[in-house]
Amino acid sequence: MTYTLILLRHGRSDWNEKNLFTGWVDVDLTEEGRAEGRRAGELIAASGLQPDVLYTSRLKRAIHTANLALETADRDWIDVKRSWRLNERHYGALQGLDKAETLAKYGEEQFMTWRRSFDTPPPVLADDSEFSQVGDPRYADLGNDVPRTECLKDVIERMLPYWESDITKDLAAGRTVLVTAHGNSLRALVKHLDNISDADIAGVNIPTGIPLVYELGDDFMPVTPGQYLDPEAAAAGAAAVAAQGKK
Amino acid sequence: MTYTLILLRHGRSDWNEKNLFTGWVDVDLTEEGRAEGRRAGELIAASGLQPDVLYTSRLKRAIHTANLALETADRDWIDVKRSWRLNERHYGALQGLDKAETLAKYGEEQFMTWRRSFDTPPPVLADDSEFSQVGDPRYADLGNDVPRTECLKDVIERMLPYWESDITKDLAAGRTVLVTAHGNSLRALVKHLDNISDADIAGVNIPTGIPLVYELGDDFMPVTPGQYLDPEAAAAGAAAVAAQGKK
Repeated sequence: MTYTLILLRHGRSDWNEKNLFTGWVDVDLTEEGRAEGRRAGELIAASGLQPDVLYTSRLKRAIHTANLALETADRDWIDVKRSWRLNERHYGALQGLDKAETLAKYGEEQFMTWRRSFDTPPPVLADDSEFSQVGDPRYADLGNDVPRTECLKDVIERMLPYWESDITKDLAAGRTVLVTAHGNSLRALVKHLDNISDADIAGVNIPTGIPLVYELGDDFMPVTPGQYLDPEAAAAGAAAVAAQGKK
Repeated sequence: MTYTLILLRHGRSDWNEKNLFTGWVDVDLTEEGRAEGRRAGELIAASGLQPDVLYTSRLKRAIHTANLALETADRDWIDVKRSWRLNERHYGALQGLDKAETLAKYGEEQFMTWRRSFDTPPPVLADDSEFSQVGDPRYADLGNDVPRTECLKDVIERMLPYWESDITKDLAAGRTVLVTAHGNSLRALVKHLDNISDADIAGVNIPTGIPLVYELGDDFMPVTPGQYLDPEAAAAGAAAVAAQGKK
């Protein structure tokens, strides 16, 4: 038998709209982002997929995208598990900065290093910043170990253990799992599933609001490539993500 | 130490509005019911209570009340557990019937027996009724054992084991638990907590949308009486519930 995994990146948020680095800052969806959540629910319902359990990050743009998608698909009665391990990459001192201004100030090379380097994190965020998560009740279980910055490698190192300890357990029980998360936490998972190299993952962009479906084998690795439920919209969305900051 | 439990009955639903018996029929909140959910969130936030985990039934009027309350209280990042064991009492063949018409047709005595008898359930709902839950994916885990009717005694017998197996475990771990459910599943729990007799529970009515807070001791029984976060509104709401059908 195979196991079914559905990945969904949250819809557009207030800070996508304003072109700011967001990371762990807990901004909400825009009205367009809410529409993306409902559209994802329509795609899931039309596909015949029936999620049995939902995993989200602890950030409301992912939580609300999932709520809207499952409400639309009439599946919001399923169980829900949330973890900081599915959060977006912590963007360090870039959190709250304008992407275009940052690009102009630091230049293309530094900008792309911060956005897409596998193992170079941005500068650390000061604990007294208004955008710091130190002391945030969402992360009480982390205590003083909340991240101050992360590169993609860091995201993989905190996300994959949760994939193995929790998500694959639900898959093994035969449950269709919906994971609603973020550009970089989903890239971390896709890198693992599709066995993408540290170099090549820089070129992988995940569009917002379009469910990506994997059929997994007994080793919880894909038996066929992942499929977007709306491939044309997914291609256009991925191109838009790649172009971020360049306006 | 003590443990904190918050009970919340869902806000007004479409079928409250229409004065129909609802039971396990999955109707949504009215706009007024949605406002009750947000108001409950304001009361929770103002009280300083910080729910760490949410329990709901599998019915959307409870799920959406909880979503709105937690979103308003900025706590919708907590874990969520759902169970049919927290569902409203199954109203059998009364599901979908008009309360006032049922009262006029069967008379006060029969009507109050169906509404408030401890151990006499209404007539069973036929499996081919449009209001039956046989085959409903929400209750796949129940298979053919979905209820066809229930009295309050039946609700207690399926709810209390879940209280003991799951909810008290979260309390024991020091988590503040929010249970968002229904008039009769919450009456079942309140009967247990307040040690109310089979006869006296008939006179207990729980108002919609007003959090009821218990501090529990090591035996998960109250150390002081439960407190509504808005006692005046709770008294008015309970009186309104008691008068249902009589219009």
